Amino acid sequence: MAILLGDLLLTWTDELFHGSGLPPSALTRGRAVLDIMRTELMAGQYLDLLEQAAGTGGVAGPLRVVTYKTAKYTIERPLHLGAALAGPGAADPALIRGYTGYGLPLGVAFQLRDDLLGIFGDPAETGKPAGDDIREGKRTVLVAVAREKATAQQAAALDRLLGDPSTGAAGVAEFRGLLADTGAQAECETMIDRYVTEALAALESAPVTPQARAALADLAIAATARTD
Amino acid sequence: MAILLGDLLLTWTDELFHGSGLPPSALTRGRAVLDIMRTELMAGQYLDLLEQAAGTGGVAGPLRVVTYKTAKYTIERPLHLGAALAGPGAADPALIRGYTGYGLPLGVAFQLRDDLLGIFGDPAETGKPAGDDIREGKRTVLVAVAREKATAQQAAALDRLLGDPSTGAAGVAEFRGLLADTGAQAECETMIDRYVTEALAALESAPVTPQARAALADLAIAATARTD
Repeated sequence: MAILLGDLLLTWTDELFHGSGLPPSALTRGRAVLDIMRTELMAGQYLDLLEQAAGTGGVAGPLRVVTYKTAKYTIERPLHLGAALAGPGAADPALIRGYTGYGLPLGVAFQLRDDLLGIFGDPAETGKPAGDDIREGKRTVLVAVAREKATAQQAAALDRLLGDPSTGAAGVAEFRGLLADTGAQAECETMIDRYVTEALAALESAPVTPQARAALADLAIAATARTD
Repeated sequence: MAILLGDLLLTWTDELFHGSGLPPSALTRGRAVLDIMRTELMAGQYLDLLEQAAGTGGVAGPLRVVTYKTAKYTIERPLHLGAALAGPGAADPALIRGYTGYGLPLGVAFQLRDDLLGIFGDPAETGKPAGDDIREGKRTVLVAVAREKATAQQAAALDRLLGDPSTGAAGVAEFRGLLADTGAQAECETMIDRYVTEALAALESAPVTPQARAALADLAIAATARTD
């Protein structure tokens, strides 16, 4: 029943797009982006399943998942879709490249912030219980960085807590300590800064209006800022 | 992985439709039919799951499943889609009604023939092992008719064989005997005749060319004829 409901909603997204009232020429241009975006999302979800089930433990695997599942789907392709819909002709290739240069690193930074908030965030702020990612054993980039930096003893502790549905407040506190002690937390903060800087540099040279540049710069900060 | 592959293929059907090379105006007309068709198919599949899990045993439930999952999806809506694509304007309402009058009963007759072939058919002809429907416990219209006509003793035998994965050649033979003895087999043959007659009568008064009428009449026979 859940699968059917998902399929039904997936087909209804098409109906919403085509019933949006946009001119047929805009819909045709937008449809090309939408097609690519959906295929990329399915590929990203596939990579995520693969990574969770058979990941080799490195950072490259989770980063690739984040690129397809989050960065492209949440930021890069929606910008390309907007450019395609805005028309009237094909979007400027320099604009498309600019959105990619801005969107991909920003999307990764956004997910890294989400990884950190999922473990260090205040549930009252994030709206999700602290430690869910730990209990689910989610192989995030943050966890992959920690595993790479961990001593054998720290690695054993990470593996013991990760994916254990009984991990409670004490286990979450221990996990936080491990992320801090291994340097993974600081490393991910550094990565966020670097990715946001990269996104803003791409935005700087993208052929957008000053208003669009200011709005997208604000978005980059809002999507990745620490809340503590 | 299977769910994702299904979703991917579902979205690719859209790409095939929109990349077909048909003029945008035809695609817009066709899309309205495609949208309805997909929602009906999901509803039919939902009804099928519901029927298999919580069916009340009557004929009305399985017949409704067949209407949505087979008759509309396999015959009625493809004809409507063709009418919409043929254009140039909106299809003649009398033509649409004619296709419904032809397609729905023909679709039910087609499924009834499939039910019969699934149990009485020669695997070399049908391409599927005899008795699969029995072992899977599929609540077809044929089975529902048999349950309605069965004595208490026959009903107990039907229920014993249906859904038992170990039902072999002897069980299939016993099941065939029950369908014959209860009169369900003959009743379904009568239903097929009645539905095909109804489809052909609707076709007779539909505003189609003589060539189209002849082709659709041939299709009605080909889709429902006995192969023994």
